[in-house]
Amino acid sequence: MSKKLSSRSMVFTTPPNIKSYSSTVGKEEGDGNLSEYFDVIEEDSHFGQDSWEKAESTMQGQTIERAIQKANLSTEDIDFMFSGDLINQCTSTTYGIRDLEIPFFGIYGACSTMTEGILLASMNMDNSLADNIVCATSSHFSTAERQFRFPISYGGQRTPTAQWTCTASGAVVVSHEKKPPYIVGGCIGKIVDLGITDVNNMGSAMAPSAADTIKTYLNDTGYKPSDFDNIVTGDLGIVGSKLLIELLQKDNIDISTQHADCGVMMFDIDRQDKHAGGSGCGCSASILCAYWLPKIQTGELKNVLFMSTGALMSTMLLQQGESIPGIAHLIHLSHDII
Amino acid sequence: MSKKLSSRSMVFTTPPNIKSYSSTVGKEEGDGNLSEYFDVIEEDSHFGQDSWEKAESTMQGQTIERAIQKANLSTEDIDFMFSGDLINQCTSTTYGIRDLEIPFFGIYGACSTMTEGILLASMNMDNSLADNIVCATSSHFSTAERQFRFPISYGGQRTPTAQWTCTASGAVVVSHEKKPPYIVGGCIGKIVDLGITDVNNMGSAMAPSAADTIKTYLNDTGYKPSDFDNIVTGDLGIVGSKLLIELLQKDNIDISTQHADCGVMMFDIDRQDKHAGGSGCGCSASILCAYWLPKIQTGELKNVLFMSTGALMSTMLLQQGESIPGIAHLIHLSHDII
Repeated sequence: MSKKLSSRSMVFTTPPNIKSYSSTVGKEEGDGNLSEYFDVIEEDSHFGQDSWEKAESTMQGQTIERAIQKANLSTEDIDFMFSGDLINQCTSTTYGIRDLEIPFFGIYGACSTMTEGILLASMNMDNSLADNIVCATSSHFSTAERQFRFPISYGGQRTPTAQWTCTASGAVVVSHEKKPPYIVGGCIGKIVDLGITDVNNMGSAMAPSAADTIKTYLNDTGYKPSDFDNIVTGDLGIVGSKLLIELLQKDNIDISTQHADCGVMMFDIDRQDKHAGGSGCGCSASILCAYWLPKIQTGELKNVLFMSTGALMSTMLLQQGESIPGIAHLIHLSHDII
Repeated sequence: MSKKLSSRSMVFTTPPNIKSYSSTVGKEEGDGNLSEYFDVIEEDSHFGQDSWEKAESTMQGQTIERAIQKANLSTEDIDFMFSGDLINQCTSTTYGIRDLEIPFFGIYGACSTMTEGILLASMNMDNSLADNIVCATSSHFSTAERQFRFPISYGGQRTPTAQWTCTASGAVVVSHEKKPPYIVGGCIGKIVDLGITDVNNMGSAMAPSAADTIKTYLNDTGYKPSDFDNIVTGDLGIVGSKLLIELLQKDNIDISTQHADCGVMMFDIDRQDKHAGGSGCGCSASILCAYWLPKIQTGELKNVLFMSTGALMSTMLLQQGESIPGIAHLIHLSHDII
């Protein structure tokens, strides 16, 4: 059963769990801060394929298959899946899962995709319609660069606020075993747009939506930031993380002690020259599966708020003078049933 | 409560209903076969905006607001919404709903979006998390032409199998009133790809997935085609509809009496020179809301299977030699609780 606290916040009184998880990253990401945590660090950025798009599809498909294997399940045991990605029109997902024969709901939340999927899966574990739901996403530096920015061979100069789209994928199997990590609550994202138009400052475009979601969940549940070991955002990077903390301080919410951001965590930023940090759907998805979920599973961490953050823009609309709307979906992860 | 019949098929024993619905179409669509049914036929294809993309956003936003008004609700009464569209990166939706302040799950199912959203909403009405969920989508001839095909001013010759992307939007409010039309069951789509690579023959690319979903639902429930007044597909057009009926006949399933296709229904094809018919997310969404739902509400039709059909491709992957995967999500609509 679930309890609806508001149209956005909910608690799962019989919480679903994350039965298994898997992560894959590329060479650059594997050379960063978290190299010891990932399941697979792939040295070949083409993943054996002849195009970047097929490379990303292959990475996502392999990550999903590994998550299913780690759950000791086969694809036939999966009721359905939620997945999406950044590449027109979510084709890294479509072609990556085409041969898996799993009933499929395509989702689009830009870099918020991982928690959008897990939140939807959790809500759907609460009725009698599913035993095992896969949630996944991916991003690839080279597919994102050529779609959103410049040809890689052009060698364009990056601005200091720019983030580096991670070559990375994460996949989980949401189930209802009595075993941590549990998903004990969540908060649905709402579009927030404070008028940022700089495509090289995505962190600032997404920070207001993350602040809005955190504030809503804390207000609706009565939790304080100190109730959590960590409050984790997807990929705000250095610039967006600073803004997030400032925005919440204006509402007298101080998360500076608990806050961590996957975009900041991924790279050894100065040595690897990654400017404001990492980004991309796969950034928070892979770090969730590599770093956070294992620590919650063992009990090293007891209570974590995790939200992937998405910039719901297109280059076309920015060329037409539009600003960048952000969204952030939150899941509340816990070692114990609350 | 719901009953899971397979990982794909389900029946809703306490079925959600469609509390209200709204449709908007452009001038060409309003000049077609169904002109008397739509809520709004907008003569200005720019919808008062200065770009096609902003026009489509405006159309979708207006359609959603009208559906909410027709339900005698305000946006604050809506728990959350599912929507998506064809335009990179689902921005017709994002910018169209940005100011509505409704908690938002972005979905991507290409032209299958409308039934993907309604199926997800129905599944989520089955727990205690929502009272009113909006599902919507849109497409616009001019946004789709310039993204997927040629500059309109180029005046490219269309092939006989080509379909015309409709300027159209549909929106529904899914609720749990005891009032028809009810959603009494559904079947989650699965990706099917039989190797079609012709981007001007989308109907044939989508027909196999529609056949697969119909067959699965009939097998899982024990229903026969004759149990339904109509079995409706999204936008297979003339070519895809013919293939659908042939594919099912190979499995000894004859839907030729019950079948109707929104892509065939929309235009007076010969007079309007629309080749294989209409297409686009908004095609099946607007016709569902304008034609089918009212007839089920009044009881003129008792039992209808409705499935929007999507081609999950991108121009990039087709340039790389890939084929076009299709998907079709089915909802079972009924005047009575079964």
